[in-house]
Amino acid sequence: MNAPTDITHLLPTVAQREVPADFIAALQARFGAQCSTALAVREQHGRDESTFTVPPPAAVVFAQSTQDVADAVALCAQHKVPVIPFGVGSSLEGHLLAVQGGISIDVGRMDKVLSINAEDLTVTVQPGVTRKALNEAVKSEGLFFPIDPGADASIGGMTATRASGTNAVRYGTMRENVLALEVVTARGEVLRTGTRAKKSSAGYDLTRLMVGSEGTLGVITEVTLKLYPLPEAISAAICSFPTIEAAVRTVIQVIQLGVPIARCELIDANTVRMVNAHSKLGLREEHMLLMEFHGSPASVQEQAETVQEIASEFGGNAFEWATTPEERTRLWTARHNAYFAAIQSKPGCRAVSTDTCVPISRLADCLLDSVAEADAAGLPYFLVGHVGDGNFHFGYLIDPDSAEERRIAEALNVKLVARALRLEGTCTGEHGVGLHKMGFLLDEAGAGAVEMMRTIKRALDPDNILNPGKIFAL
Amino acid sequence: MNAPTDITHLLPTVAQREVPADFIAALQARFGAQCSTALAVREQHGRDESTFTVPPPAAVVFAQSTQDVADAVALCAQHKVPVIPFGVGSSLEGHLLAVQGGISIDVGRMDKVLSINAEDLTVTVQPGVTRKALNEAVKSEGLFFPIDPGADASIGGMTATRASGTNAVRYGTMRENVLALEVVTARGEVLRTGTRAKKSSAGYDLTRLMVGSEGTLGVITEVTLKLYPLPEAISAAICSFPTIEAAVRTVIQVIQLGVPIARCELIDANTVRMVNAHSKLGLREEHMLLMEFHGSPASVQEQAETVQEIASEFGGNAFEWATTPEERTRLWTARHNAYFAAIQSKPGCRAVSTDTCVPISRLADCLLDSVAEADAAGLPYFLVGHVGDGNFHFGYLIDPDSAEERRIAEALNVKLVARALRLEGTCTGEHGVGLHKMGFLLDEAGAGAVEMMRTIKRALDPDNILNPGKIFAL
Repeated sequence: MNAPTDITHLLPTVAQREVPADFIAALQARFGAQCSTALAVREQHGRDESTFTVPPPAAVVFAQSTQDVADAVALCAQHKVPVIPFGVGSSLEGHLLAVQGGISIDVGRMDKVLSINAEDLTVTVQPGVTRKALNEAVKSEGLFFPIDPGADASIGGMTATRASGTNAVRYGTMRENVLALEVVTARGEVLRTGTRAKKSSAGYDLTRLMVGSEGTLGVITEVTLKLYPLPEAISAAICSFPTIEAAVRTVIQVIQLGVPIARCELIDANTVRMVNAHSKLGLREEHMLLMEFHGSPASVQEQAETVQEIASEFGGNAFEWATTPEERTRLWTARHNAYFAAIQSKPGCRAVSTDTCVPISRLADCLLDSVAEADAAGLPYFLVGHVGDGNFHFGYLIDPDSAEERRIAEALNVKLVARALRLEGTCTGEHGVGLHKMGFLLDEAGAGAVEMMRTIKRALDPDNILNPGKIFAL
Repeated sequence: MNAPTDITHLLPTVAQREVPADFIAALQARFGAQCSTALAVREQHGRDESTFTVPPPAAVVFAQSTQDVADAVALCAQHKVPVIPFGVGSSLEGHLLAVQGGISIDVGRMDKVLSINAEDLTVTVQPGVTRKALNEAVKSEGLFFPIDPGADASIGGMTATRASGTNAVRYGTMRENVLALEVVTARGEVLRTGTRAKKSSAGYDLTRLMVGSEGTLGVITEVTLKLYPLPEAISAAICSFPTIEAAVRTVIQVIQLGVPIARCELIDANTVRMVNAHSKLGLREEHMLLMEFHGSPASVQEQAETVQEIASEFGGNAFEWATTPEERTRLWTARHNAYFAAIQSKPGCRAVSTDTCVPISRLADCLLDSVAEADAAGLPYFLVGHVGDGNFHFGYLIDPDSAEERRIAEALNVKLVARALRLEGTCTGEHGVGLHKMGFLLDEAGAGAVEMMRTIKRALDPDNILNPGKIFAL
């Protein structure tokens, strides 16, 4: 580990490669109005929700089809120009930043739901479909797609970062819910990584290799996903706790008893205050678990009773139920807005987000010491978490122009990650490595595993044009 | 596709590479009595449950530690000698056969359960632990490992082939249940592919890349797995059906209704007859579904009632329940012995196994036409299947010395696979590609995807020493 105060390895290295003028001309000839070099468009595609600022890409191609993507990548391959896929721009770790220059391919217009196979509980979509649009499209079939990272992210982006979110404790992550992909390779070739069969032993798992590869191994142009029947009964509840520890101990016991809870989120008292201020909610300003139960009416009741019993053993009180869809939507909207509520609580600030995930038995050890450290450091922060998975996020609120605040935030993150790794966890449960966690990945996976990743990358993308400079230095 | 009667591409290509004498001497110097060149030992390690016969490996190393594996692979790397990992020898597609010569590393003595983390529902084992031994070890903690391919396979082998089996319809396959691995690379280096965190976005999913790679990318030396609490209630049932179609339609509806059935197996009437003869069971000799339900007592009853209702709509009758552990064990033993019962029904025969898996809505289309074809061909066969997953197995019983019987069996398989691929399925749900399905993999995945696999293989194993000649020609 670097010393806690040395954060230089956490800042992006910008080394822009040349973008030849004849390449831009060829791009414009092929794509016409679908290609933009306007500064505002480029700037919008050259940033995400991370705290970093780097120069924007040289051009943006708005792809409308797999062929568009293949042609754009083939041109990039021919001219050895970097290419960065763009969904909605909600990633948190600098994934979209053009640190080596090149162009952005915006797949937002590839937003068709291509086929819903309700009988097989599968759906195939273009990568620009967002999770909310997908759920809207399959609702009338009595189905839903559970993966919910909060932001209305694109399915392509969620696939590329191996996203998860609030429902993962029950339904898994993108790792478990992507059945097959269509991908454009570094040479601009189109291939499929799987079928609609529920399981397969047919060779290397290229699907899982692409999921979480952050645009560095291929550009995703179609995604086949699992769907789930809308639960017969859904019930959400909030419960307040006197301490964070009481809430965390409750969660640990709920998980260890095997309760099939669908969502299990922690929001600390301070973040509840921010959410109240932002969303005018009137929630009790105490540490809180926000939970949801899915199943038959009998099963939902059984789960809820078990959880209520455990919570009360740990001093949980003020159990409040939300059984109508409207009440539930209100609660989950508040949860999802925690990030924006926090950002607005300190004008002009940005959030340095943490994303550690540890085995559930280590959750209290990991979380409580980190809360104490954050309190001692004096930076404002929000704290939310998919605690049923052992995953939680601090968002340290910094003035992006203050080197000192950034240093304090990054030093807290360095300590937190080191702790999570000691406890057999990971530096990133769901946000990905991007620019920001390359050093942490090395600490976590070891030089040998990272070198194996690099070897795969070099083999599949010898000219290093696919989102270069992310996950590992190359 | 090749013409249905041309099966030459399904037979193994044997091209043994030189094994230098000084390599064998170095191996013996390092491993002493742990290294055998006795013919009987080599022959036992040079065959599996496939129908192929090729010359055995030149030596067998009985590894007792990760260091043993690393040292053996490093010696192989130095001398460019092929190395094939061996668990218990239960694979079905020629995975273990030394088609390019080299040595076998038997990991059977690496049979320690290294750590049970009951609070996190995880366990870490050496690769030679078998699934039954694992379940024995975790039973006292109230836990179990559900993946059950029938044979008492090694966890290393199950990982390498991405195995699944009877419980996959509810619990997933090795793909979903391996959390992390320790692997020895082609250079003899040891690395870990993940942590004990339930989810992670930390770089490429090396774990999933290794799962199902059939020993071609690394030798697995440790496996961290998910465990599950033993269900509060378990109930098994058999139900007879007038036709295979009636049984299959029942299954489709059960799955589409979202019943969380834990096991859902089809056994056709002819196979029931073989099982009766082998295990003296006295089962009704009709097409049958063998099912199991896991959950709370109320949930198990709810599931069972739903399924009984659906079955009776399709003419299912003679629902018989097995609620005691002894009765259940008897039924599942009978199911698992179907393969051996069939083999014994035709002395000296071997089984050509099929392994297609299709989306559940296509199951009847895929299965019924294939039954008609098998009946018309006149070869005896067994038919069993994890039909809740859309996965089923014909085992065509052939005299291995009869070219004509082999031709008929392979031609049936060729037709079946072509049908499954048309129906958006896979040529192999759980057995793997091995030697036997390389042509089918090409049909299924396409030349581009197979070339991507080959590129990864070449990059990670440039001298092609790790189980060469499997999955794809190289």
